[in-house]
Amino acid sequence: MFETQEEVPEIKERLHRVGITNLRTVARINWKGKLYTFIPTFEITIDVPEEKKGIHMSRLVESITETMSEAVEEEVREAHTSLEELGLAVIKRLEKKHPHKRAEVWVKTQLIMERETPASRKISLETYDVEVGVIKEPDKVEKVLKVTVIGNTACPHAMANNQGKTHIQRAVATLEVRTDYNEEIALEDMIEVVESSFSSPTYTLLKTIDENAVVQKMYSNPKFVEDVAREIIFKAKQKFKGRIHVKVISYESIHKHDVIAETWY
Amino acid sequence: MFETQEEVPEIKERLHRVGITNLRTVARINWKGKLYTFIPTFEITIDVPEEKKGIHMSRLVESITETMSEAVEEEVREAHTSLEELGLAVIKRLEKKHPHKRAEVWVKTQLIMERETPASRKISLETYDVEVGVIKEPDKVEKVLKVTVIGNTACPHAMANNQGKTHIQRAVATLEVRTDYNEEIALEDMIEVVESSFSSPTYTLLKTIDENAVVQKMYSNPKFVEDVAREIIFKAKQKFKGRIHVKVISYESIHKHDVIAETWY
Amino acid sequence: MFETQEEVPEIKERLHRVGITNLRTVARINWKGKLYTFIPTFEITIDVPEEKKGIHMSRLVESITETMSEAVEEEVREAHTSLEELGLAVIKRLEKKHPHKRAEVWVKTQLIMERETPASRKISLETYDVEVGVIKEPDKVEKVLKVTVIGNTACPHAMANNQGKTHIQRAVATLEVRTDYNEEIALEDMIEVVESSFSSPTYTLLKTIDENAVVQKMYSNPKFVEDVAREIIFKAKQKFKGRIHVKVISYESIHKHDVIAETWY
Amino acid sequence: MFETQEEVPEIKERLHRVGITNLRTVARINWKGKLYTFIPTFEITIDVPEEKKGIHMSRLVESITETMSEAVEEEVREAHTSLEELGLAVIKRLEKKHPHKRAEVWVKTQLIMERETPASRKISLETYDVEVGVIKEPDKVEKVLKVTVIGNTACPHAMANNQGKTHIQRAVATLEVRTDYNEEIALEDMIEVVESSFSSPTYTLLKTIDENAVVQKMYSNPKFVEDVAREIIFKAKQKFKGRIHVKVISYESIHKHDVIAETWY
Repeated sequence: MFETQEEVPEIKERLHRVGITNLRTVARINWKGKLYTFIPTFEITIDVPEEKKGIHMSRLVESITETMSEAVEEEVREAHTSLEELGLAVIKRLEKKHPHKRAEVWVKTQLIMERETPASRKISLETYDVEVGVIKEPDKVEKVLKVTVIGNTACPHAMANNQGKTHIQRAVATLEVRTDYNEEIALEDMIEVVESSFSSPTYTLLKTIDENAVVQKMYSNPKFVEDVAREIIFKAKQKFKGRIHVKVISYESIHKHDVIAETWY
Repeated sequence: MFETQEEVPEIKERLHRVGITNLRTVARINWKGKLYTFIPTFEITIDVPEEKKGIHMSRLVESITETMSEAVEEEVREAHTSLEELGLAVIKRLEKKHPHKRAEVWVKTQLIMERETPASRKISLETYDVEVGVIKEPDKVEKVLKVTVIGNTACPHAMANNQGKTHIQRAVATLEVRTDYNEEIALEDMIEVVESSFSSPTYTLLKTIDENAVVQKMYSNPKFVEDVAREIIFKAKQKFKGRIHVKVISYESIHKHDVIAETWY
Repeated sequence: MFETQEEVPEIKERLHRVGITNLRTVARINWKGKLYTFIPTFEITIDVPEEKKGIHMSRLVESITETMSEAVEEEVREAHTSLEELGLAVIKRLEKKHPHKRAEVWVKTQLIMERETPASRKISLETYDVEVGVIKEPDKVEKVLKVTVIGNTACPHAMANNQGKTHIQRAVATLEVRTDYNEEIALEDMIEVVESSFSSPTYTLLKTIDENAVVQKMYSNPKFVEDVAREIIFKAKQKFKGRIHVKVISYESIHKHDVIAETWY
Repeated sequence: MFETQEEVPEIKERLHRVGITNLRTVARINWKGKLYTFIPTFEITIDVPEEKKGIHMSRLVESITETMSEAVEEEVREAHTSLEELGLAVIKRLEKKHPHKRAEVWVKTQLIMERETPASRKISLETYDVEVGVIKEPDKVEKVLKVTVIGNTACPHAMANNQGKTHIQRAVATLEVRTDYNEEIALEDMIEVVESSFSSPTYTLLKTIDENAVVQKMYSNPKFVEDVAREIIFKAKQKFKGRIHVKVISYESIHKHDVIAETWY
């Protein structure tokens, strides 16, 4: 059996990120004492030194699948209490399987959170896209936490010029924090920061009195996409230690194109 | 050289649509005396009888590329005056290259149209996704014309319950007509039917006075996604002979999900 | 409070499908005695008669969320043993909430299945996109079951002309069966039919000896996209009662475009 | 008329990138003496200082549309000979319309190039996704040139272990160069660098003898995704001055997931 990967390549260049992407598999998290099963998408990469032709891809897959199947066992209910802990567990396993200097594991999935509707006080389950990356460098381990939240903007400029009438639209904001692995930041708190920065939060279930409350909220809280971005980064800087990136896109109801505001710290 | 395609397959099943898809190439149309170059995406398929293993894919590609390169020549400026004429020209060429009973050519591209903004009367160029299919059956040739237009909805229910305030959002509508190949229907007229059925049309360029006009228009013309669908099919039935399909999606500003209305005739 | 939806619209047109789409929420299935939690995407629609302006969208949302939260309760572990049963439960609930003649519920999610790799006999977890629709007409209830499977094609024509060498590529096939609601068809069996019809199945985890086995399998089993489509429909007709639709796309390694074979019965 | 944008915002945070995105419009380039019309997608952003609430979005749109319509006029055939020149012309116009310290214009479109097939020597038109960004900082103007090319990989490891048989698949590589605005780099040369680094280039049109040549080429030139990335960055460093980023994704024919190699300089 040939191990072509171990050969010296003709062209010698260091590669920073080599691995697999778009791998979907089952995962399980013990979050605040409750078990959650979900089907995230994984990316896992390591670096390749100049003198090696390639990596052993199957060992990366094994690092993920063994960690996941371990997490599925009843006896390890204590094991992984967050997505970043899951990511680090994959890297720890990978360290025994494949030499490397730097490694990254990225996990994309959805988070479900309970919200109360603003007037009827019904429970509405809301879904959020989240992504967590664990990045191991020779001297440190960092993590990247990313949440994407759907909200809305009611234009203050049109409102000022139209006696209280304005254009309103769906907007989507992403908040990303890159920080030390040991920094404690809950994705739920990040979602909270973003969701509270729109003209109004959005809800899956809205009875007429709730719909009225959301409409009133949007009109009493008009915001440019710039205002949303500013409020997110302002709150995030106070709450979360690390490098912060904010991006807001507003799907304008009066245009065919979108409007964007982005900033970082 | 083996012609594996001509062999008799082990399993005998007639296949209705075999060919190539997602092929991008350059095309040229002489539309109302003016030449337009664009890069559409093509799908072209033929049927395969039970006793043939496969088709000669390269002949389908050649039918497209030869028709396109012909269209690029100066001397054939007269040749293709519409996307369906282009599609039929591909089928005519294919008839000489590859036996078949039925053939389809689908062309997806964008159309640019000039609009005048509602107050400042500036020119605003608007882009629309369009798709045209030419379907040759043994006894007839039909075409499918499809346009997708971005507009908006202002909710009449929230407006009635909130003293004129309401939620507004981007909406996207698709109108499809399937008809005899010789039926004369302009994509521009179809776009017109759809665009005039929203709470307001949308524009690429809007100065403040235009923005105000669009805002006022949306509030004076509140519409459910159902109203938009009804108005499109009502107008389309009067203007276009054929089978009509309408689909409207509203990207709700108060929800994370979308709202849909669909009907056909 | 105004019920604008109950008004008579100016334009009278029957709408076939009105409702919500792209709604993600949590669901739970008791499948063969084991509980599975997942986050599917829902579409739910009803028809709107000529004399009604709109539907009460929140009742559709409630039909989904109440069914889902019921399914989450421990005591109803027996309740839903398949996606179609879940879909029908939503419709049953909707019948008490909102008058209609026809209703559709569509659920899109992923299925995880255990496979054994061909040589090392390791367990490999494989993910498949599935979609189930339940369609209630005045006189009958039908269901649509759809599975999408990733496999590959090794071209027999190139193999015949290149002394056993050929081009190979990823291919994706979709099998859809529309049938009576009570017809018993397992998505797992449909996946099996599709996956066994490629040049070879694909696996998440492959050690070198498994990779060799897959390579050998592809070369000993060369197939056009047409062959894959034929084998799927041939097997599906024998196993599943209903209207069958097959579509195979091959992401050609020698072209920038894709190749397609589609047939139905 | 109120100019809400000029107000001082409650929260004071500098925003780095505010503007419009996903704007499609018509553009025209005089490339090597020949006129090309196409429909690119634009993103244009400027920074917003702490003491301003927002930007005047319509001035950004005008900067694009005026530049484009100018480019459409016959008399300015000399004007824009590249996408970056077009981008800079938009920024120059914007400077007169809206104060800012930094500005970015991004243009995404497709490039068509003529290739000769390897055996029959036919002309095959190939399409490539390209993106060009012009980034104006207070002290300098830089540009980012990006090309995306579809090719393939034939696995050398499987080939060594299976007597010349191997798995082959479509692969997609992106090469990005960030450099001084005045650095002369042709997108065509960048495409050339990428396309020549796969196991074989791909072609839209391939007659059987061409297909054979491509198949033979892939087997005589087996490459890991790592090899492709290494070859691209090695060639790019020699040819193009600037910061270089390479990303290659291989759509594995034996897996459901993808394989990735990324590096930068």
